[in-house]
Amino acid sequence: MNFFELRTIRWEDGKVVLIDQLSLPERLEFLTLRSCEEVADAIKRMAVRGAPAIGVAAAMGIALKAYNSKARDREELLRELEEAGRMLKGTRPTAINLFWAVDRMLGLAERFEGGLEELKEELVREANRMADEDFETNRRMGEVGEGLIEDGDVVLTHCNAGALATVGYGTALGVLRAARERGKCVSVIATETRPALQGARLTSFELSSDGFHVTLIPDTAVGYVMERGMVDKVLVGADRITRDGHVFNKIGTYQIAVLAERHGIPFYPVAPSSSFDLESDWRSVKIELRGYDEVVKIGGRRIAPKGVNVLNPAFDVTPPELVSAIVTERGIIKKPFEESIPKFIKKNL
Amino acid sequence: MNFFELRTIRWEDGKVVLIDQLSLPERLEFLTLRSCEEVADAIKRMAVRGAPAIGVAAAMGIALKAYNSKARDREELLRELEEAGRMLKGTRPTAINLFWAVDRMLGLAERFEGGLEELKEELVREANRMADEDFETNRRMGEVGEGLIEDGDVVLTHCNAGALATVGYGTALGVLRAARERGKCVSVIATETRPALQGARLTSFELSSDGFHVTLIPDTAVGYVMERGMVDKVLVGADRITRDGHVFNKIGTYQIAVLAERHGIPFYPVAPSSSFDLESDWRSVKIELRGYDEVVKIGGRRIAPKGVNVLNPAFDVTPPELVSAIVTERGIIKKPFEESIPKFIKKNL
Repeated sequence: MNFFELRTIRWEDGKVVLIDQLSLPERLEFLTLRSCEEVADAIKRMAVRGAPAIGVAAAMGIALKAYNSKARDREELLRELEEAGRMLKGTRPTAINLFWAVDRMLGLAERFEGGLEELKEELVREANRMADEDFETNRRMGEVGEGLIEDGDVVLTHCNAGALATVGYGTALGVLRAARERGKCVSVIATETRPALQGARLTSFELSSDGFHVTLIPDTAVGYVMERGMVDKVLVGADRITRDGHVFNKIGTYQIAVLAERHGIPFYPVAPSSSFDLESDWRSVKIELRGYDEVVKIGGRRIAPKGVNVLNPAFDVTPPELVSAIVTERGIIKKPFEESIPKFIKKNL
Repeated sequence: MNFFELRTIRWEDGKVVLIDQLSLPERLEFLTLRSCEEVADAIKRMAVRGAPAIGVAAAMGIALKAYNSKARDREELLRELEEAGRMLKGTRPTAINLFWAVDRMLGLAERFEGGLEELKEELVREANRMADEDFETNRRMGEVGEGLIEDGDVVLTHCNAGALATVGYGTALGVLRAARERGKCVSVIATETRPALQGARLTSFELSSDGFHVTLIPDTAVGYVMERGMVDKVLVGADRITRDGHVFNKIGTYQIAVLAERHGIPFYPVAPSSSFDLESDWRSVKIELRGYDEVVKIGGRRIAPKGVNVLNPAFDVTPPELVSAIVTERGIIKKPFEESIPKFIKKNL
């Protein structure tokens, strides 16, 4: 298994085939999804997760809806696609890539001037283009970002911003791969990332498969490793970045950024332009609250008494003052973000 | 089950009976330990944990060694007890209560002037006195500390500094119990405390058994709840406090203290005088590194790929500048700690 080249999501004869992230690291299995509803369910269950990956998965969901449609005319198809879009957008509220991807597919459908069958084919082509673009974007982000990495660096990362969070290569972990391809030696400290354990299950899996030296730590040990001088840089992904530089990412990111600042360690989110939200005020972005079972059970075993209350927010917000710079496929965005982000980011809607 | 009165460790007809903390919250079971070796093993496996609890358990271990001894004279018994003390001290290096308790028992044995059988009996009595003292100390700490709690407060706590970490009533959680006994309403946010999950398994169990409103959060959500203004105070236990106010406590405490400072939330360790170490420089205190399996397996299920490296420190150090004040049974110790700690703490060695 090599995650430099692997594609995690692909279109295959009218079906969407993607890695089942819930069965990792025990088994590497692919799910075959036959309908848009199955895609929505896979996103909701986090069988596919990671902002760029769920964006492309949602685009493939729209493509599946078109491919399977029995609509008799363009209007009927558009109505079906809009409904599918609403369903997909209702799966998870925080990562903007999902909304961006659905809107891009629906925008194409609305603007399209050919016939019904041609439109269906074009939607499948568009979803595949978005998958290819995601891979290429990550390679470019890697090239842009690897300049920040010095030979011998130890990089702390949170959650999984890797090949598994994207169509391939990864965002934050793509930067590490690019640094390796330039001959730099990089070691990684991966936080296990409770409750869903993406760091333990996914990041340590894909990085150790690629031969990186990875050390897994509990989320409680971030302060310890930083205080002991064991971390040179922090690289994370992002689920949404607002125009003033507020970074929405996996729960736990904010406290890592606070600790990084205290210890003088640079903190870099790595995200494609599709993760930016130039419209919303950061205070209005909805943070997903997930279920009880993710916290009180691990692998089916109960770890907390019955009847206890649980708060399980899936994301948090890191304010711009804690962000050193942001790596995108268009270059490194520096402060002040309110000026630089709108200049760098023009969406391909 | 009511944790206001429960005793977690007791001497019973030449045996030590204590709650098996590893089977909680699934089953509340008592272990019956028949030898000092069994006590040492229980401490090592964390079947009994919590600084005050392992102190008293170690004292009971010495008492068991004396009780079971076939030594023919005082000298032989003293040699056996010293060896037992070395074994007990070798179980876990960070909590000072363990060392304090063993030294107190051995000191008594050395100074004792009666006969062999009288000495054995006196050691059993002394271990029982230490258990009673621990309970009384915690009640006093509760009375001292409850003045810090206001009606309606939400207190965040980490790990388990409760009845289960002591002979009964608890240190940090004892303060909450005392506040309740004075008619104050207190809610609690408990961090789950990976890797050993004492917050999920123990704190949320004992507090919800006692009718507290407890909300369990992943360790990654501490920044989130503080940033949203959901926390009024932080109360934690301590495994060792040096004379200049460095607080050794469960891994993850330091980062909670950093976040509390950022959000203007008071941070109070609650610990008996037996947890203070007036001699050691904080830099020389050994932090226990625990095993691989605690991180890569939960309830027997593997959550990380084979071959990944793990760093599993059991404790971290919170520097005095992040500590608002320290609650002890002798009063609240305020800054500057270098002056106040030596004045307050005189050990009963």
